[in-house]
Amino acid sequence: MRRLAYFLAAVSVLAAAPALLSPAYGRADQEVFVTKIPPGYRDWKLVSVAHEEGNLNDIRAILGNDAAIKAYRSGKLPFPDGAIIARIAWSYVPSEENNKIFGRQQSFVAGPPREWYLQFMVKDSKKYAATGGWGYAQFDKDGKPASEAKLKTCYPCHEPIKARDFLFTRYTP
Amino acid sequence: MRRLAYFLAAVSVLAAAPALLSPAYGRADQEVFVTKIPPGYRDWKLVSVAHEEGNLNDIRAILGNDAAIKAYRSGKLPFPDGAIIARIAWSYVPSEENNKIFGRQQSFVAGPPREWYLQFMVKDSKKYAATGGWGYAQFDKDGKPASEAKLKTCYPCHEPIKARDFLFTRYTP
Repeated sequence: MRRLAYFLAAVSVLAAAPALLSPAYGRADQEVFVTKIPPGYRDWKLVSVAHEEGNLNDIRAILGNDAAIKAYRSGKLPFPDGAIIARIAWSYVPSEENNKIFGRQQSFVAGPPREWYLQFMVKDSKKYAATGGWGYAQFDKDGKPASEAKLKTCYPCHEPIKARDFLFTRYTP
Repeated sequence: MRRLAYFLAAVSVLAAAPALLSPAYGRADQEVFVTKIPPGYRDWKLVSVAHEEGNLNDIRAILGNDAAIKAYRSGKLPFPDGAIIARIAWSYVPSEENNKIFGRQQSFVAGPPREWYLQFMVKDSKKYAATGGWGYAQFDKDGKPASEAKLKTCYPCHEPIKARDFLFTRYTP
């Protein structure tokens, strides 16, 4: 019995080997994603800000952990493993309070969290080799992660900016 | 001669005393302002973001030093001495790069610094007693401080929100 067990174990390892060694490993259909909200992101330094119209309809801040901010400020690409970018999206709302004081309609501020409140890009060139070295994550306003089907749409959209290490946002001093 | 010098010195101190002791000290026409850019502000944590239309035409980030962020998060008013709020204003520009990838006009990002790039509010309840305990500062994109005439317009505009310790911006988690 013991010899048979060894034999079966050896067979199962060999059976798995082609999948591990195949160049197909790391293809888009085997993408891995970030599934937990990186702790402390709300304390990170600011990369920049933006407003998205259309369905997104948000005003957003892009923050970076220390490794990301250092990389942004140095201008060196690619970003090092350990760098994390956070994107926080709030509702884009007119501020009646500000407008009253200014005496005209002009002020738009960050309201409640948008439906897809948080996004992250986590750099790990080995773990996320299939998607340019970045793992993608998205969480709704209740902290629930997006489906794998939704997360699969991240990388194709970032791919056109490969020359900037897949980062849309530029650092604004 | 020495006795005369002492006498004249004493007279000049006495002459100044009424101005120093008078309740008029600290009136709006004797406002004091912040004249130097607080160091390290670009590393501070994010309070919130906003977009101003009209002449301002900017997209902005509001940052706070640790004392300010702690006060914002605690919800306690007034803010303690030492708290500093920074407002950075960038040009509000459409991102052709992003729009091309999204396939529609929707993305507005932070461009070059706006003319009045930086504003600060520095809390010192004694030094800035005449203006609600906050000292105001404004610097252009070259780091040049605003004129005293211009800085005199800060406090009257912030006065209507005295109930929130003169702070327009709410912290967005």
